[in-house]
Amino acid sequence: MTSNTFGTLFRFTTYGESHGHMLGCVVDGLPPRIPLIEDDIQICLDKRKPGQSKYTTQRHESDTVKILSGVFEGVTTGAPVGLMIKNEDARPKDYSDIADKFRPGHADYTYFKKYGVRDYRGGGRQSARETAMRVAAGAIARKVLVHRLGQEVIIRGALVQIGPHKIDRANWDWKELERNQLFCPDAKASEIWGKYLDGVRKSGSSTGAIIEVVAEGITPGLGAPIYGKLDADIASALMSINAAKGVEIGSGFATAAMTGEDNADEMRMGTNGNVEFLSNHAGGILGGISSGQPIVARLAIKPTSSILRPKKTVNIHGKDTEIVTKGRHDPCVGIRAVPVAEAMLSIVLADHLLRHQAQCSA
Amino acid sequence: MTSNTFGTLFRFTTYGESHGHMLGCVVDGLPPRIPLIEDDIQICLDKRKPGQSKYTTQRHESDTVKILSGVFEGVTTGAPVGLMIKNEDARPKDYSDIADKFRPGHADYTYFKKYGVRDYRGGGRQSARETAMRVAAGAIARKVLVHRLGQEVIIRGALVQIGPHKIDRANWDWKELERNQLFCPDAKASEIWGKYLDGVRKSGSSTGAIIEVVAEGITPGLGAPIYGKLDADIASALMSINAAKGVEIGSGFATAAMTGEDNADEMRMGTNGNVEFLSNHAGGILGGISSGQPIVARLAIKPTSSILRPKKTVNIHGKDTEIVTKGRHDPCVGIRAVPVAEAMLSIVLADHLLRHQAQCSA
Amino acid sequence: MTSNTFGTLFRFTTYGESHGHMLGCVVDGLPPRIPLIEDDIQICLDKRKPGQSKYTTQRHESDTVKILSGVFEGVTTGAPVGLMIKNEDARPKDYSDIADKFRPGHADYTYFKKYGVRDYRGGGRQSARETAMRVAAGAIARKVLVHRLGQEVIIRGALVQIGPHKIDRANWDWKELERNQLFCPDAKASEIWGKYLDGVRKSGSSTGAIIEVVAEGITPGLGAPIYGKLDADIASALMSINAAKGVEIGSGFATAAMTGEDNADEMRMGTNGNVEFLSNHAGGILGGISSGQPIVARLAIKPTSSILRPKKTVNIHGKDTEIVTKGRHDPCVGIRAVPVAEAMLSIVLADHLLRHQAQCSA
Amino acid sequence: MTSNTFGTLFRFTTYGESHGHMLGCVVDGLPPRIPLIEDDIQICLDKRKPGQSKYTTQRHESDTVKILSGVFEGVTTGAPVGLMIKNEDARPKDYSDIADKFRPGHADYTYFKKYGVRDYRGGGRQSARETAMRVAAGAIARKVLVHRLGQEVIIRGALVQIGPHKIDRANWDWKELERNQLFCPDAKASEIWGKYLDGVRKSGSSTGAIIEVVAEGITPGLGAPIYGKLDADIASALMSINAAKGVEIGSGFATAAMTGEDNADEMRMGTNGNVEFLSNHAGGILGGISSGQPIVARLAIKPTSSILRPKKTVNIHGKDTEIVTKGRHDPCVGIRAVPVAEAMLSIVLADHLLRHQAQCSA
Repeated sequence: MTSNTFGTLFRFTTYGESHGHMLGCVVDGLPPRIPLIEDDIQICLDKRKPGQSKYTTQRHESDTVKILSGVFEGVTTGAPVGLMIKNEDARPKDYSDIADKFRPGHADYTYFKKYGVRDYRGGGRQSARETAMRVAAGAIARKVLVHRLGQEVIIRGALVQIGPHKIDRANWDWKELERNQLFCPDAKASEIWGKYLDGVRKSGSSTGAIIEVVAEGITPGLGAPIYGKLDADIASALMSINAAKGVEIGSGFATAAMTGEDNADEMRMGTNGNVEFLSNHAGGILGGISSGQPIVARLAIKPTSSILRPKKTVNIHGKDTEIVTKGRHDPCVGIRAVPVAEAMLSIVLADHLLRHQAQCSA
Repeated sequence: MTSNTFGTLFRFTTYGESHGHMLGCVVDGLPPRIPLIEDDIQICLDKRKPGQSKYTTQRHESDTVKILSGVFEGVTTGAPVGLMIKNEDARPKDYSDIADKFRPGHADYTYFKKYGVRDYRGGGRQSARETAMRVAAGAIARKVLVHRLGQEVIIRGALVQIGPHKIDRANWDWKELERNQLFCPDAKASEIWGKYLDGVRKSGSSTGAIIEVVAEGITPGLGAPIYGKLDADIASALMSINAAKGVEIGSGFATAAMTGEDNADEMRMGTNGNVEFLSNHAGGILGGISSGQPIVARLAIKPTSSILRPKKTVNIHGKDTEIVTKGRHDPCVGIRAVPVAEAMLSIVLADHLLRHQAQCSA
Repeated sequence: MTSNTFGTLFRFTTYGESHGHMLGCVVDGLPPRIPLIEDDIQICLDKRKPGQSKYTTQRHESDTVKILSGVFEGVTTGAPVGLMIKNEDARPKDYSDIADKFRPGHADYTYFKKYGVRDYRGGGRQSARETAMRVAAGAIARKVLVHRLGQEVIIRGALVQIGPHKIDRANWDWKELERNQLFCPDAKASEIWGKYLDGVRKSGSSTGAIIEVVAEGITPGLGAPIYGKLDADIASALMSINAAKGVEIGSGFATAAMTGEDNADEMRMGTNGNVEFLSNHAGGILGGISSGQPIVARLAIKPTSSILRPKKTVNIHGKDTEIVTKGRHDPCVGIRAVPVAEAMLSIVLADHLLRHQAQCSA
Repeated sequence: MTSNTFGTLFRFTTYGESHGHMLGCVVDGLPPRIPLIEDDIQICLDKRKPGQSKYTTQRHESDTVKILSGVFEGVTTGAPVGLMIKNEDARPKDYSDIADKFRPGHADYTYFKKYGVRDYRGGGRQSARETAMRVAAGAIARKVLVHRLGQEVIIRGALVQIGPHKIDRANWDWKELERNQLFCPDAKASEIWGKYLDGVRKSGSSTGAIIEVVAEGITPGLGAPIYGKLDADIASALMSINAAKGVEIGSGFATAAMTGEDNADEMRMGTNGNVEFLSNHAGGILGGISSGQPIVARLAIKPTSSILRPKKTVNIHGKDTEIVTKGRHDPCVGIRAVPVAEAMLSIVLADHLLRHQAQCSA
């Protein structure tokens, strides 16, 4: 598989640089006759859009998506859906002072070593701006899931930690996300986070975060044994998000300290004739296959590498130097990564739904 | 991609059940003229073999590998290498008492919901016995890496936590692994672990663990942007290992609590004209591409689900029941998963080496 | 895709050399709960088996297939099906006199240029012996088609030309194939072919042939636009058969001389409410998608390159020389290629059926 | 693989409908540092452009290509290259009278049966207008081939038959293609074809054709055994072109009537130390791998299905009716398919070059 395509049956390809003409995406393998208009996609993009709060980059992009193909008279035709978002506030000049220095924590150095050439305009292809198209593709993936599994499918994410500050899970309220700009499900934590981020921002620093994504309403049977495991594909999907450094499913790393009797989720027949699990340490996945429980994954996002404090580095001519990254950046990229993580989870699920139905459901 | 194949250019497919005739593997895409004999593979398999200590399953398998094709006069021909390991101690009867119950924490329930049919013999395809073939394929992947990058390539793993007990990194000594049966790089921790595992085993319980794998001698440039990221593929590879619940790269989940100035690894020109990094929070990967630093990943393994204590469950007829899993099982599957994790890392690196050379090196 | 795997969802991988231990195959992506026993496969293999008439190679192989995995209690489990055929009459020594000469028309030279190493034992991997496993995989593909589309699915092939001698289509009778050893549907032609082949065989020469394969009972909708066209995949599948030099669909090359009014198949509503076509120049495929008409393809097979008459060639040391290929060979490889062509067509159809149902039928 | 993507390492995806906003293409897997400007692509597109002679459709499209991404300061960066061609003369209204009728020979019926929805605007995605993007991707593939193999790589095509009229191979002169609008290498045949096509056009009919494509300067070793054969991939690539009904390699279908001694190309050491073949019945490919000889393939193109004479058909309501296809159409689509066939051959070769270098050359 080439590197700009994701998925097996529900499959999308992105292209475009942070400071080029536009971002593009092609979504292929879509079932026909699914109602789809640009607003279905725009509503998701607006959640990721930059410049919505003082905690995110001040780059001004409306991130207006246009459907170029694959939809006729309001429904998908089965043909590939082309999508386009124009870059409206690209400023290639902003980056000319760092054109020959490798920014620590960024991919400048590794891209240069790999390709022997460098598009220094805002990181070119390595910029998180590409994730807008993941969100767009994810919006379409949700339509597929709802089309085939029904309205009970809900896929959503929240931040559970910013810097050293975790939420209190006892306070979890999804509605809280509508009341703050931090995707925080805990009203108390959101206040602490706000103050913490103010300090981070003013000092020209940055901070990391942990995102939790949850998919409800997913039927049992999605995923495939061995190398097609649902959790393996979720791990790949989430780890491919810019600045991701860790992924866990269900109780994740905490299971290392657990015993078998604590960890294995017991089962009982529910009142409606369905199996019910008495806990969800598994995060809704057993042997790589969905169990019908909510699918739960978490993702660690490292602090933004672009900071205003000088760092030691080298330049493309092999000389030691220092760098301060001015530009316009998010003090915590984890915030805007929440809709991206939701999108990637949706895409993996839509892909596996089609794969499962091909093999087992017809 | 169907679910029993892994990789793009270095690619392998496995088949066979835990209590069937045999395990099989086909490794395809191999460069020609690489010296390869069965001993190259056997030496790796012997590290994973069951029954080597009181801490692993007492199933008796020599795990003797046979090369069926693709090698002529001692070197690879470019044709696919078929591998076979016969099952010598399969006991399908052992499992007949659990044939109609779903073991909690196992994939019995999800396989049954997916396929509507169940191979209950030791879990059939879901058994960790399949990982023998990952180790075999991994041994061949190492040969490819050494053939193309030289003898400085070293890929190895260790346990860094068993149950609640972590190693002290100050004590890390790779040579210690030759002195204990627990893949423990810390002499003191290995003693504590031994006692802890004795208790776990005697009580019929089980415990989780964390594995760390490290690849040294990997040149910069391996991996590809966006969806072909080296860390995304490592995440998928490691998460596909049985009982895995989390994967992290470099400082991983700890980066959530870090600031940008702490996390970004600074750079300086080294004495030999190469770039040197002053730290390795990135775990050797930036923007999905190797930087030339050691590649470091960690993997959380949940406690073995097969335990001697009764658990609530349901059977295939939809009735509530209880289950005790007798069979022969590892009290900590994390131990034997170390060579599997090494193998999967080797395979991802070999695959990305071929991919990188195709695009950039010719 | 690596070179020894075929298919997207119904997918198989083969390995093994002509004069090695065995031939192996792994069929993955199979729907569960399909009844499958070795006899289902053997019956197809027996049609391709060598040594059945004086017109085919005298190598003695029972081609007995063994199912190694993926079937439990008589049905597929969804796990990969491993298959094995042992080589019983391998004679690596037979070929030692040609070990350093490139046989004209064979792949000796190109394999050596590609890989820099040569498995000269009967051509190793390039031998048509590999096609036994295509037939085995094809037998399973038929089971999938019948399982999902019903008993009306019939896929069969015949020879329509041997050397300069074509059949008379007016005489076509599928039952005639049971009465001759030449897959000839025309009783008169089979006599002429027999005499012609006697001459070819006695003179140590060889001849080419044309195969026609037909699939009936295939529902409309299989195949996908642009690069996933059913006819493109059939072309690839048939052209991948050893000695194939041409593929055509429906009226094929003859359409070049036709006009639009002659070629386009007109449509009328049939008595049962289905569309009926008034002709089938399209060979059952329009725009890469099946129309419901019989799918018709033809395949040109070149004459066997191994002949008893001396040919000019060079050796691996770069010297001019001559060669006579003794070994045991088919005077017309086209004969035994008939079941192979049927198998490849079945595999393409099974794969596209799963792909179609994933996208459109759920 | 989803249906709108082609290739393994050199890989492209197209989208867009004949009468939608635009055509789009994403080329991924490109080696970095290859000089690339829009003119490199435009020069190839201009050969396929409609409206250049009275023998092709009168639709007015400049087919001006724009590079959207993946090129920085005049060279490829290794990032995906996005391409766009705006539709300038789309007339969706032209087709409204045939919106509910299935045009015989077109894919209207099969698309409708597959997807249950129909984009009737000029055939939507099924239109040959999509092939513009194949030509664009092919232009980039040529750059890759020349970048890695040198200027001696020449890939070109010609028509060898229109309707019943074949060229005389003794007259073959590639320069003749610059002197006529019919890609005819035989001056005499071009006159005959011109008159024949005048008659076809005036009578509202159409005709088929045969294209021959030749690649020179290709090194031995491209292609891979069994299912990755170079000729199998060429067959798939050419058969995926609109209206293609047959593909042959080298002597193709004619080999059926040949004997082994006539068909197998003998070898001799050449004066420069390279192997020389005394004939090229193989069309430059043995065992699926290039031999260093010119690669020769032919492609049969059926007559345009859109004709002015009434044909029997049915409509989407299941009623018998008649149809006359007015629109703007090519009397012989084979003419404009020549640059498309060249492009597809170039793409297969570039892909296999990368694949070969990954496995064998590093």
